[in-house]
Amino acid sequence: MTTRKPPFAPQRTHGLAGGRALRPSSKVLPEHARGHNRSLVLQTLYLAGERSRADIARETGLTRVTVSDLVAELIAEGLVLELGPREDARPGKPATLLELNALAFHIIGIDLSEFAIFRGAVLDLRGQIISRAEIPLENSTGADAAAKVVALVERLVAAATLPILGVGVGSPGIVGLGGVVLTAPNLGWVNEPLQQSLAERFGLPVLVANDANAAALAEHSFGGADSDMILIKIGHGVGAGLLLDGSPFFGGRFAAGEIGHVVVGTDGGAECVCGKRGCLETWLATPRLDAALAAAASSDERTTILTEAGQRLGIALAPVVGALDLAEVVLSGPTELLDGVLGTAVIETLRARTMAEYHGGLILRMTTLGEDIVLRGAAAMVLSGQLGVS
Amino acid sequence: MTTRKPPFAPQRTHGLAGGRALRPSSKVLPEHARGHNRSLVLQTLYLAGERSRADIARETGLTRVTVSDLVAELIAEGLVLELGPREDARPGKPATLLELNALAFHIIGIDLSEFAIFRGAVLDLRGQIISRAEIPLENSTGADAAAKVVALVERLVAAATLPILGVGVGSPGIVGLGGVVLTAPNLGWVNEPLQQSLAERFGLPVLVANDANAAALAEHSFGGADSDMILIKIGHGVGAGLLLDGSPFFGGRFAAGEIGHVVVGTDGGAECVCGKRGCLETWLATPRLDAALAAAASSDERTTILTEAGQRLGIALAPVVGALDLAEVVLSGPTELLDGVLGTAVIETLRARTMAEYHGGLILRMTTLGEDIVLRGAAAMVLSGQLGVS
Repeated sequence: MTTRKPPFAPQRTHGLAGGRALRPSSKVLPEHARGHNRSLVLQTLYLAGERSRADIARETGLTRVTVSDLVAELIAEGLVLELGPREDARPGKPATLLELNALAFHIIGIDLSEFAIFRGAVLDLRGQIISRAEIPLENSTGADAAAKVVALVERLVAAATLPILGVGVGSPGIVGLGGVVLTAPNLGWVNEPLQQSLAERFGLPVLVANDANAAALAEHSFGGADSDMILIKIGHGVGAGLLLDGSPFFGGRFAAGEIGHVVVGTDGGAECVCGKRGCLETWLATPRLDAALAAAASSDERTTILTEAGQRLGIALAPVVGALDLAEVVLSGPTELLDGVLGTAVIETLRARTMAEYHGGLILRMTTLGEDIVLRGAAAMVLSGQLGVS
Repeated sequence: MTTRKPPFAPQRTHGLAGGRALRPSSKVLPEHARGHNRSLVLQTLYLAGERSRADIARETGLTRVTVSDLVAELIAEGLVLELGPREDARPGKPATLLELNALAFHIIGIDLSEFAIFRGAVLDLRGQIISRAEIPLENSTGADAAAKVVALVERLVAAATLPILGVGVGSPGIVGLGGVVLTAPNLGWVNEPLQQSLAERFGLPVLVANDANAAALAEHSFGGADSDMILIKIGHGVGAGLLLDGSPFFGGRFAAGEIGHVVVGTDGGAECVCGKRGCLETWLATPRLDAALAAAASSDERTTILTEAGQRLGIALAPVVGALDLAEVVLSGPTELLDGVLGTAVIETLRARTMAEYHGGLILRMTTLGEDIVLRGAAAMVLSGQLGVS
């Protein structure tokens, strides 16, 4: 089970640039404390549902006065609703129940991680998808690809029927400070200031993060992930997102999770686009796997291909599981490829190559969020960055 | 260069149980804020040296009143000294300079990680060693080994000439919540409540952590480590300690860094004490390396043995460097084995097996803290847990 630390954002959000307003300062200044406490109130209502002011005070450790003050502000902003008196048998005046107003805002989520298509959605504050839109990429790169992101956001802004809390984008490649896509080879982007250009174009808060990191965040917010988890996203490329101590980990230079071009094993392997041999992507990227399976002569041969792919992922992950004491590995990608022989080979390899006494309880599972994982992760970024809830 | 986050402890200290008083709460309560602010003042003086109250207020963002109040408390406790007026040319009344009183306390550090001997030291608040003591282990295990720890602490308590801030212990094995040694096979300990028994015996604050985690903390506090670093401790066994985002990372079940029994490569390897084949320890543990080198017929053969050992460490670390975007790998252990052919093979292997564009700047170096790294790390644990400085 997840040990949730409410709220998410104030713990470590530096990778979600734009959420910086909620970043914990090492200085406990009054304005920081207020923002922090506001997030605490919202997080309590977000996770716990209907609560009275007294409930919130008790659960957060904040004073009644502080809670009442913050709740008044949140009601004025339309983020919190008064539901009326609690119906219970307690003596005295019944407390007024509050809830987070799920209809206060819509969120726009964008997934740029698929090879041939940009997908987007309007989501509610619970991360449920309200409507969808997509634009075929048609091999666009550079400015053309960026223009297609703008066109997709434009459509979704028009489709939203509530005020928009913000726009979250999961991009392939390395996404640095301020949501700059430092490098995304498939899209021909180098130092593409996607976050800033979208924010200026639409006048909305925008958060851009790596697609696998967004997916890990979705697992955290909506998928019930363990607090020490690696999510492996397998598609045209192979990437990973990490939750450590319940918070996403982005790395000092925002390249955490970039395991696709780590060489696996000591017995060679196929040549990779990067020039090396035996990178994880040569074993697991879906075009490679699909091609190998299509060429296979028998069912046995297909099983061998999937088993070897899973073993390679297990070999690569064993030192990571050992070094980080991970509790859970979550796979995201084509179910028909991953959920079965391949996944079984991953967990068996991990068990065979790590210490049973520490990692015997390691869990491997498919994401429950399906193909919408990046869209929902993009929404989770906005929830975390703008409201401090997750 | 390290990006230091003052202070260390309030960020993430849950692995250093006993330092829990300084653990960040998700609730910003007045008493928490006060402890946090007190640590900020101490950390500023610890890192920056002589400062006036106004300097501290400016550098921490705290108000002048808060700083004066906290400084008065710290002066009363003897932790801060007034040095007298600043000698400078600024007009007006010169400010009074303050410094951390390095002679306020001694710290006791204990290193249980060596195979045949328990080592200890009295250290000052700067982590400098004042005096030493040691007790040969003579194959003691279980209660006998625990009694030798008590005897060693007893000697060092007697040797200290200042009040003792606390006792830090770096232990082999897995150390869990509350400084319980969950398992340390070499010492025959299972669920050994070392922290509690020492605290009760001596009436002092005691912090027990894994030896490699203590070593990583020493690199953080005294060795100028990068904020995203893995320290590999090579001795009778092989372990690791991690700094992520400038804070030590212990893992959800305190087993982070346990990489000694991860299988490396896909080409077999020697049988390990754990029953598997090709564990990192079979390539790198010093008894194995020493035996292989002693049996070598030529200088070339010795070079091959050291190169292969380094390559294996590189193979194991490549996925960890990729997943965590690490900036630095620090080796701790016998210089004559590690510093040369072996170390070169590690970094060359890491470069060959990761993405040059992300990890080309990766640094590998020997620790500068030599054989005292665990002793100094144990002192850093006490500084962090008791004063919130690092």
